[in-house]
Amino acid sequence: MSGGRTGRRPGSSDTRSVILAAARSRFAEVGFDKASIRSIAAAAGVDSALVHHYFGTKHDLFVEVVALPGDPAMVVRTLGDAPLDRLGEVLIRTIVGLWDSPIGMGAVAAFRSAVAGGDESLLRTFLTDVVLKDVRVRVDEEIGDGAKRTALVASQMAGLLVVRKLLQIEPVASMSIDELVADVGPNLQRYLTGSGLDTPAPAPRAFDHRDARGGA
Amino acid sequence: MSGGRTGRRPGSSDTRSVILAAARSRFAEVGFDKASIRSIAAAAGVDSALVHHYFGTKHDLFVEVVALPGDPAMVVRTLGDAPLDRLGEVLIRTIVGLWDSPIGMGAVAAFRSAVAGGDESLLRTFLTDVVLKDVRVRVDEEIGDGAKRTALVASQMAGLLVVRKLLQIEPVASMSIDELVADVGPNLQRYLTGSGLDTPAPAPRAFDHRDARGGA
Repeated sequence: MSGGRTGRRPGSSDTRSVILAAARSRFAEVGFDKASIRSIAAAAGVDSALVHHYFGTKHDLFVEVVALPGDPAMVVRTLGDAPLDRLGEVLIRTIVGLWDSPIGMGAVAAFRSAVAGGDESLLRTFLTDVVLKDVRVRVDEEIGDGAKRTALVASQMAGLLVVRKLLQIEPVASMSIDELVADVGPNLQRYLTGSGLDTPAPAPRAFDHRDARGGA
Repeated sequence: MSGGRTGRRPGSSDTRSVILAAARSRFAEVGFDKASIRSIAAAAGVDSALVHHYFGTKHDLFVEVVALPGDPAMVVRTLGDAPLDRLGEVLIRTIVGLWDSPIGMGAVAAFRSAVAGGDESLLRTFLTDVVLKDVRVRVDEEIGDGAKRTALVASQMAGLLVVRKLLQIEPVASMSIDELVADVGPNLQRYLTGSGLDTPAPAPRAFDHRDARGGA
């Protein structure tokens, strides 16, 4: 179970990509929760310790598999560093910028295979526990209702991925990031910091979230 | 190729469901464009004329297959009849109401299989040429930029489907429709009738779509 049948040296970049391939198919097959490091190591024909040595925790390995760029922590940090009142813009620039980069193909493929294979936990974990976790905590501390706000942000961003990258509906498929910032940014910003969000007022006519008050 | 090997009477409700099942799997396999009525009829073991007799055009058959309720034209008409300044609310009440109904399982399954199978054309056609077509025309005539506005609406609604029904991220998964109307409605309404939408001003700080003006 340890070592390699072809005599690969542990530590070669070859071993690294074999582990990644094994992880990718395990995560796709059984989802994040059920794919153990042990089973991934077994599929790759290496020792579990080697998987940890290369990739750290299962969480780190997962982030690598879903094809975030070189330093995924940097993306999360970019979101973390953005002022709260500009977070809508920064979210679009960072995430859509990623999708539109060569590396974005992996993200689109991962989304497709997660939806296809019924690996909801893979994608849900990825969104709520990796990408948007810090944002949720920050928004929650400063404004409140963090879980709802970030779930709504996830709904807009997931749909943007579907329409721009998968379905490629025009003109959204070809719009520049600046144009997306102008059009989608304010909607994200309202989800993140808008004031009328946690009052479930079913005012039947008024939609401006400032004067949505009068009873039905 | 015509008739049925088990002696089904043409016109029985049995024949109807056999055609529907054949259509469902053809559309899933090859997508809307490549699934001919002739091939669907062949798979069902009936004559093409019978398919047209039961379902009308391929378009009508497709709408039936993706599991809109009894009278799909009624949904489109509901959107068509809604006043423009309430369309965000009506969209959510109509579409989410559908997803949450027993019939909604079919819509979720269709979305999943379209994304899984790479049947983008199926889903794109469905969204742009069936559900949102009349809305696009209306918004375009009265306010302009109809294609962009409805593509943005599609992005929010597709993402809401993903987060509420597929990933089931809380609290969006369990929110009442009234609460979704209050939280998501204004964002849809801005896409549909918002005034700052077609000015691609990349103002780096201001996000309120009213004062997003000053040059960068």
